[in-house]
Amino acid sequence: MKNLTIIGVTGSIGTQSINLIRLNKHKYNLVAISAHKSIDKVIDIIKEFNIQYVAITHRDSYEKLKDYLKINNIKCKIYYGIEGLNTICSLDEVDTVLTSVVGMVGLLPTLKAIRAKKNIALANKETLVVAGEIVMAEAKRNNVKILPVDSEHSAIFQCLQGNENNAIDKILLTASGGPFRGKKTQDLLNITPEQALKHPKWNMGKKISIDSATLMNKGLEVIEARWLFNCEYEDIQVVVHPESVIHSMVQYTDGSIMAQLSSTDMTLPIQYALNYPIRDTSFIKKLDLFEINKLTFEKPDLETFKCLQLAYQAGKEGGFVPTVLNASNEACVDMFIREKISFLQISEIIERCMDKFSINEELNIDNIINLDKKVKEFVYNNY
Amino acid sequence: MKNLTIIGVTGSIGTQSINLIRLNKHKYNLVAISAHKSIDKVIDIIKEFNIQYVAITHRDSYEKLKDYLKINNIKCKIYYGIEGLNTICSLDEVDTVLTSVVGMVGLLPTLKAIRAKKNIALANKETLVVAGEIVMAEAKRNNVKILPVDSEHSAIFQCLQGNENNAIDKILLTASGGPFRGKKTQDLLNITPEQALKHPKWNMGKKISIDSATLMNKGLEVIEARWLFNCEYEDIQVVVHPESVIHSMVQYTDGSIMAQLSSTDMTLPIQYALNYPIRDTSFIKKLDLFEINKLTFEKPDLETFKCLQLAYQAGKEGGFVPTVLNASNEACVDMFIREKISFLQISEIIERCMDKFSINEELNIDNIINLDKKVKEFVYNNY
Repeated sequence: MKNLTIIGVTGSIGTQSINLIRLNKHKYNLVAISAHKSIDKVIDIIKEFNIQYVAITHRDSYEKLKDYLKINNIKCKIYYGIEGLNTICSLDEVDTVLTSVVGMVGLLPTLKAIRAKKNIALANKETLVVAGEIVMAEAKRNNVKILPVDSEHSAIFQCLQGNENNAIDKILLTASGGPFRGKKTQDLLNITPEQALKHPKWNMGKKISIDSATLMNKGLEVIEARWLFNCEYEDIQVVVHPESVIHSMVQYTDGSIMAQLSSTDMTLPIQYALNYPIRDTSFIKKLDLFEINKLTFEKPDLETFKCLQLAYQAGKEGGFVPTVLNASNEACVDMFIREKISFLQISEIIERCMDKFSINEELNIDNIINLDKKVKEFVYNNY
Repeated sequence: MKNLTIIGVTGSIGTQSINLIRLNKHKYNLVAISAHKSIDKVIDIIKEFNIQYVAITHRDSYEKLKDYLKINNIKCKIYYGIEGLNTICSLDEVDTVLTSVVGMVGLLPTLKAIRAKKNIALANKETLVVAGEIVMAEAKRNNVKILPVDSEHSAIFQCLQGNENNAIDKILLTASGGPFRGKKTQDLLNITPEQALKHPKWNMGKKISIDSATLMNKGLEVIEARWLFNCEYEDIQVVVHPESVIHSMVQYTDGSIMAQLSSTDMTLPIQYALNYPIRDTSFIKKLDLFEINKLTFEKPDLETFKCLQLAYQAGKEGGFVPTVLNASNEACVDMFIREKISFLQISEIIERCMDKFSINEELNIDNIINLDKKVKEFVYNNY
């Protein structure tokens, strides 16, 4: 029996994890959950799984849920805000924390969980993007596993199994290319949020869907891969693969490439992370290669999809630059969804921020969090 | 330092192994070799690698080489025939035997090597096709590894690494489809040996090239896979993949497929088998997926390529039926190359033999070898 905390339980990954746990109640004991606002969903989960601890990060929603639990005499401890997240990530009775929140909010609770010696099933990209060096060092120090939940990083992780002593020549990180693959800059002038949210292959949350349309999602994944698998940026090659059947590959120095393929269902990486190294039987749609018929590969278009290029640049420069990249991107995506800026402005503003903010301080979590706020404020105040 | 015997050193796999060993003399010590007739090549290898033992299976060639070694005062012990092969496969100073002979002649020396507790780098298909049950049981009893050198089985073996405790759902054995992919029976009426020997992707020996044209090669590989990986015939699916980039795949019960890709160079599976589990850096051409651009998949055409269907049937029936299949195929391929029978007669004769020979004796090596002879005699005498 694995005792779990899930932060971000009402999001896309959180919801799919709940479905998985529902089918495997004999294997997983869901101890604690968090959400931002969606307390109706939270109430259902608390009742169904007999949750012992809940954290809510939105003030009013926290108060409402607190009252609801009291009135209905439900014995579930409730916490507020980032401190609440920290608390449910370091509970004694928990073995593994699944971090499926989106954005910087995932950083501190993940570090708390690592320091409390919990294994991490990591679905929160930003944690490694802004603080990969610090987080991986803490994980090593505390002897905990960071198990990737992203489909690409899970694929890479699967391709590395049984190759512990073998040198990686190249990581081939696949990308669907998003809804605007094949388009040029002039085609992207008047893109609406609605168009950008329509991903051809994956059904995901809003933030990650926009990131997929700009290829920033792939850029963040490149930085994440650099830290998860301890490799150089030069050795991470993005491969556009529109069919999204191969979820990534690892090329070894003997010339052999190991690849992982499956249907586009996040249940698989969630399950692999929670159950590693055992593969549980699952009920996801099996791939039919005869039906798929062909798999294709293209080079990414870094001219049109500048965000990917900026992410490589930020990663290579290191230090606080990925924090600037990530913070400006988070603010830009939010402003694009609210139609405050255009699609093409996203990369322009990120580039401006990367030029503007240059920090000469110690790389630590406090400075990262402060800079994140400053960059976001700058974007919100100037556009 | 690994001490090696290679039987069949002048064939296709043998020659590529020699090239590999030449580049890695600090890693491999070639102790003993065998060949049938090509004594010029053998003399070069004896001199270059300072070979201590040699076995020759062709009488005249054996006598010639014996004289040559004596006259030139070369200190290399020479043996004759199958007893000679058995001797060099069970030498005390050898760790690993690479069996790269083609045909039934590989069976007895491989068993000898297993009983002498040598690990086997297996490039001889027939060993497992005719006696898979016996050979795998002997390997288990003697605690030796059978490491596949076929590109497909090496791929499957690589896909199984790190998944020792995970259940296989399906083995996806890829096939290039051979030179006649897409053709129908009527197109194959007047095929010449020359046409059949032209493989689109691999440069191989004659026997295996013809087997690739009839798809019998894939059929023998299905039977081999059944024994190597202990799975049911129902769970081995042949996937025609003309680009020969993916060398095979394993689908697990969680819906994940692991695949192995590389350029078509046998150096890789040879090296993986000899150096397992370490992947040595190699100098084979690296795959360029951007250049390859696309990978395609088709169902095999069992109507036209009847040999594949016959192999499944022989495998499922078990017992001596695979021996009949293999023996009649060996004789037919030889007769086809010598233009004694037509391309389409190959499967007709095999089918006739499978109907004709039904044996009710104990499944043991002597009976297998006797039956092999009887079936071949029948084919040679009747066509």
